[in-house]
Amino acid sequence: MAFSIEDSQIPRGNVFLNGNRPTGDSFYAYMHTGAIQIESVEGEDMIAARFMDIDDLQLVEEDVPKPGPGEVLIKVKAAGICGTDAHILKGESASTPPVILGHEYAGEVVELGEGVTGLHQGDRISVDPNMFCHTCYYCHSGKEHLCLNLTALGVDIDGGFAEYAVVPEVQAHLLPPSVDFTAGAFIEPVACCIRGLQQAHIQPGDEVAILGGGPIGLILLQLAVAAGGRVTVSEPVQSKWSLAKALGAGRTVLPEELPDDAFDIVIEAAGIKATVEQSVQVARRGASIVWFGVSPQGLQAAIEPHEVFRKELHISGSFINPHTHARAVKLVGTGAVRVEPLVSHRFPLTEIDEALRVHASGHANKVMIIPE
Amino acid sequence: MAFSIEDSQIPRGNVFLNGNRPTGDSFYAYMHTGAIQIESVEGEDMIAARFMDIDDLQLVEEDVPKPGPGEVLIKVKAAGICGTDAHILKGESASTPPVILGHEYAGEVVELGEGVTGLHQGDRISVDPNMFCHTCYYCHSGKEHLCLNLTALGVDIDGGFAEYAVVPEVQAHLLPPSVDFTAGAFIEPVACCIRGLQQAHIQPGDEVAILGGGPIGLILLQLAVAAGGRVTVSEPVQSKWSLAKALGAGRTVLPEELPDDAFDIVIEAAGIKATVEQSVQVARRGASIVWFGVSPQGLQAAIEPHEVFRKELHISGSFINPHTHARAVKLVGTGAVRVEPLVSHRFPLTEIDEALRVHASGHANKVMIIPE
Amino acid sequence: MAFSIEDSQIPRGNVFLNGNRPTGDSFYAYMHTGAIQIESVEGEDMIAARFMDIDDLQLVEEDVPKPGPGEVLIKVKAAGICGTDAHILKGESASTPPVILGHEYAGEVVELGEGVTGLHQGDRISVDPNMFCHTCYYCHSGKEHLCLNLTALGVDIDGGFAEYAVVPEVQAHLLPPSVDFTAGAFIEPVACCIRGLQQAHIQPGDEVAILGGGPIGLILLQLAVAAGGRVTVSEPVQSKWSLAKALGAGRTVLPEELPDDAFDIVIEAAGIKATVEQSVQVARRGASIVWFGVSPQGLQAAIEPHEVFRKELHISGSFINPHTHARAVKLVGTGAVRVEPLVSHRFPLTEIDEALRVHASGHANKVMIIPE
Amino acid sequence: MAFSIEDSQIPRGNVFLNGNRPTGDSFYAYMHTGAIQIESVEGEDMIAARFMDIDDLQLVEEDVPKPGPGEVLIKVKAAGICGTDAHILKGESASTPPVILGHEYAGEVVELGEGVTGLHQGDRISVDPNMFCHTCYYCHSGKEHLCLNLTALGVDIDGGFAEYAVVPEVQAHLLPPSVDFTAGAFIEPVACCIRGLQQAHIQPGDEVAILGGGPIGLILLQLAVAAGGRVTVSEPVQSKWSLAKALGAGRTVLPEELPDDAFDIVIEAAGIKATVEQSVQVARRGASIVWFGVSPQGLQAAIEPHEVFRKELHISGSFINPHTHARAVKLVGTGAVRVEPLVSHRFPLTEIDEALRVHASGHANKVMIIPE
Repeated sequence: MAFSIEDSQIPRGNVFLNGNRPTGDSFYAYMHTGAIQIESVEGEDMIAARFMDIDDLQLVEEDVPKPGPGEVLIKVKAAGICGTDAHILKGESASTPPVILGHEYAGEVVELGEGVTGLHQGDRISVDPNMFCHTCYYCHSGKEHLCLNLTALGVDIDGGFAEYAVVPEVQAHLLPPSVDFTAGAFIEPVACCIRGLQQAHIQPGDEVAILGGGPIGLILLQLAVAAGGRVTVSEPVQSKWSLAKALGAGRTVLPEELPDDAFDIVIEAAGIKATVEQSVQVARRGASIVWFGVSPQGLQAAIEPHEVFRKELHISGSFINPHTHARAVKLVGTGAVRVEPLVSHRFPLTEIDEALRVHASGHANKVMIIPE
Repeated sequence: MAFSIEDSQIPRGNVFLNGNRPTGDSFYAYMHTGAIQIESVEGEDMIAARFMDIDDLQLVEEDVPKPGPGEVLIKVKAAGICGTDAHILKGESASTPPVILGHEYAGEVVELGEGVTGLHQGDRISVDPNMFCHTCYYCHSGKEHLCLNLTALGVDIDGGFAEYAVVPEVQAHLLPPSVDFTAGAFIEPVACCIRGLQQAHIQPGDEVAILGGGPIGLILLQLAVAAGGRVTVSEPVQSKWSLAKALGAGRTVLPEELPDDAFDIVIEAAGIKATVEQSVQVARRGASIVWFGVSPQGLQAAIEPHEVFRKELHISGSFINPHTHARAVKLVGTGAVRVEPLVSHRFPLTEIDEALRVHASGHANKVMIIPE
Repeated sequence: MAFSIEDSQIPRGNVFLNGNRPTGDSFYAYMHTGAIQIESVEGEDMIAARFMDIDDLQLVEEDVPKPGPGEVLIKVKAAGICGTDAHILKGESASTPPVILGHEYAGEVVELGEGVTGLHQGDRISVDPNMFCHTCYYCHSGKEHLCLNLTALGVDIDGGFAEYAVVPEVQAHLLPPSVDFTAGAFIEPVACCIRGLQQAHIQPGDEVAILGGGPIGLILLQLAVAAGGRVTVSEPVQSKWSLAKALGAGRTVLPEELPDDAFDIVIEAAGIKATVEQSVQVARRGASIVWFGVSPQGLQAAIEPHEVFRKELHISGSFINPHTHARAVKLVGTGAVRVEPLVSHRFPLTEIDEALRVHASGHANKVMIIPE
Repeated sequence: MAFSIEDSQIPRGNVFLNGNRPTGDSFYAYMHTGAIQIESVEGEDMIAARFMDIDDLQLVEEDVPKPGPGEVLIKVKAAGICGTDAHILKGESASTPPVILGHEYAGEVVELGEGVTGLHQGDRISVDPNMFCHTCYYCHSGKEHLCLNLTALGVDIDGGFAEYAVVPEVQAHLLPPSVDFTAGAFIEPVACCIRGLQQAHIQPGDEVAILGGGPIGLILLQLAVAAGGRVTVSEPVQSKWSLAKALGAGRTVLPEELPDDAFDIVIEAAGIKATVEQSVQVARRGASIVWFGVSPQGLQAAIEPHEVFRKELHISGSFINPHTHARAVKLVGTGAVRVEPLVSHRFPLTEIDEALRVHASGHANKVMIIPE
């Protein structure tokens, strides 16, 4: 939260925006790294992890792609493995094969497509993978993230499990120097969690329960603390408690220790039946509940409408990251959200199979692919 | 929605408030009926329906009560039977016997307790029955209606199934001449429905589904229309459709005809498992759902969290009538909400047993007790 | 607000969306007009009104333009004159000459550019003229309409004062059959007024004052009525009162007749110092005020902060039409907002000079250009 | 933000509420101090500062008052001097003399009036001075703090500049042990600032400007930081900067150094023309502005409506402390808001004249009266 330039040196004028992009104090002064000359990679090959069919992820060698108009080519520096990647591989989540997976990634701009003026070679960027049609009912209603034709880099269009990736300029967010590439690859899940936070409507002093102490729960924890909440994290695996406390939890408890009717805000972050149902029980009268964890399709929770009535509860879903990626960059950049303690494993791209195995084991926090 | 005074006659100054109470145009010009002299009823007897114990409602003759400081005595002119009355009698809903039931009522002020300055003899009033402790956690947080010590006239304190009733001044709302006493006895459920409307966040042009075409559904219908919604009422009993259409429904359908993923706003107004579950299915992405119908305690609905996530739904309960009684008076007074078509039966107080039987039959709309 | 198909004929499934676009009941069933064959206009000439420089609007004859990828060519059927057009001509409002003016227009699709799949030849559309960069700070924050690089059809890019116009598919909104082209050309100002309405937060029963009874005031009036407000229109020109009443005003008054401290909602719709200042005076405690009228740059109003404090007022600006164009189509289509009574003059494109003169006279309501 | 009990010892059940009052973890476990026996002060005398008329504040000796039904008698332990006290003395602010002034105070319960069950002898309490009629238009609309008949302890009814004071039970808020009496006397201004914070709608990561670095500005600063804002404090007196930084300001600047169009949130906390006008200039597009400082009646600021339109600004007033006193107790209790560094002077009650002189000098931060 510090500003490194001297107060007296603040220039007049809009110091917080430089051209279109935020800038103006030391935090943002990073932005464009300037006259970096980067050698062309045209005609070179690269390695990529391409999803061909269910249970068929292939490490392939192919041409480095060319950025089209309005696009940039980046050298991928880090890419996170997400539960969605595993679901796609098992055929449980929609995607458009053959496609290079990886939708949480960051890298360095190496080539500009035609008409790109807002980015320069050498710029360090994080990718917002979700893209909208801008013509459907939801896009026209200002709910683009609920777009009927939602597509995503790393799901429907080639993504970040590769040495190089083409990214539309509008999907690229500049990183401040305080955010390294690994953290940059973590911006997407943080952005999704910010959407969850917005649904929670925390006021300073609220008692907040986070049900689940995995990586997502620990991001939500930090956001809830940043919003002024006093947070209790409920997590059955006690070995996860110390990290939760280090990241701001006032209290860590076993799920069965959580008191009923006690929290102004409850955020479910496990995506299982037990925690969804418990979220209603532990909510205080007038509470807001966010079902953030992604439950399997078809899973049904037993909810008592009389309890929702009597306590006048508010339950919200939270879907992807509408307009929250820029805020996520800022909160990671200022240190309000720390993601590096959540990275438990790093693998080179060639070991992505092992990386997926570790991810699937359930014993890891975030698993990162570092292509190079 | 008409104003009967000439535009040019509007006096300067705050014409919409007279003293503490709203007034100033013809709609509100009613207010105090003026120098009415009403004979004292001191020492007289009255009939009342007193709840003694489960399944034991007794018609008793007792002294007309005396209003204490800050209270008024009213002659009850109309009192509605609510599902809650039936639940109390069966021991399914909390109350404090022995107590005169009836929490939806209106009447004429006949006597003023010490220190009452805002009401006059002859004033026509509707009663807001819900009273708060002003000291508990929820009262101190501005959520008085979630008060831990909530008490209600007609539930815990003598109410409106009587010829006379004592009402604290703060619970009394003046009625405009356009609202007769029967409508005045209907203000309380309208006020509860306004709370439901507020949870729905309707914008003009929204597609709204009301699940259930009983009296409550038809009040919610009118409020949704007033807020600019295009309303579809889902109701299995087709004989109820014509009234729904007369009150503004654009469309009336059988529950099984309701399309999935189609409504911006869904208001459940039946309080049964099937409609609670359907509310989630028929909601469009980004929709707001209000579970307004009071389901039995213990009833569980099977809700799929993945659907709440994927459609990013918002589900709210709605509890009683926080600060909505005054607005209910106004909306009934302007004709935005019409309640008289919802009254199907009227009984004198001496026939309250029969009135309760008719209410319990399920074939009636609103059943009113007209004491005299 | 009527539905013309029989209730029992509602098909199962999502009847309100057909492909990406809203549809499914008679209101929306219009949508695509189907297999209309339209002869090519390739190589033909057209007339257009091109803004060359300050005070220099030229009627020119030039080639009918070709739609590029993602664009359609429309035959313009109606285009409204807006105060902004006059400001641009006088050099008081930014634009990018040489450019065909006209940003409120509707027409028929005659040719599809490459990759357009959501529109067909013969489709009747209204144009949303405002376009965003999707890369600046505000676009990335979800406040696209505050885009630092905002451009608009008819301001910076060729618009609707022409026989034909190229329109990006994402800017085109299908019209239902209940909306003729003149009404279609009125959608844009209605959409701007919906933004104003959203800032006002009207609840059914609120007392609303609209300060100004011109075309914009009368659209805001209808929207406020649709949202449940009881509306008083303040307008010094008494000849405008009857139309205001016909469109739903409960009361029309001279500005000096407006009572102080009386309205829950105040919408300033004149853009002059006197009404901006009066908006604060007539607001009731806790009121929301919207300064909707566009005041000249540099004009200063004298506002008393103590009054904003003591009455705890909320004052909002309202800028263009973020995500409100689709809702505007719907509200005009259902008749909730009637625009045809607001059209006072129609001119062919060749008489645009006269049309601008009439507009500038201040005695007209909406002046429409009907190219053919 | 710490919890001193062991996580594993959290009892089941609602640990956060004990009876009506919040409790259940170590923070709240304080609450009732238990079986304290306090000697009666009946028949004793006390010293009080009674406002008789303009410029006439008299130190009088009079009987210790008796608590009536629903009231408690407290021994006043600390009472803050507020600008309003000075205004009352000069006849610039309404009050009801003769009356003991002092509306920011805390003390110990020494005697219970009839019917008081929620408080015990020995309880340590803070007083919320503002009382509402519960019958006027605003009270009935849920905006009690805008009550037409607002009265306040220390303004219209005897307050805290005395050795003993009678306080209605509903106005008393229990203090946790972490809040001493001086801090308890500071709860009221903190509660007012929380209302201001609520009007600002800060999200974590927002750039916030606080215009004014006095005690109120520094409370708002801490609240803005608690809500996740990155705060710049603008203050011409550079000697106040170090305290601002110690309390969380990321940056402190001279008013003329503040950049235009730069802040998501602007909170005016000086109540003068220059800062009110600057608040609009430094606001970024889409910003929320709160005019929190109480400007003198009659003072007019020159506001440009075109700027409010073009940047689509939101300007709010903030009036007293609706339902925020309990939250203020909590935020001071957890240390989120530190008030002790804001107390610059302490005087015994007998030196209240000198205390008022110091307060009026403008060189003091908070001036406290410590009766004993």
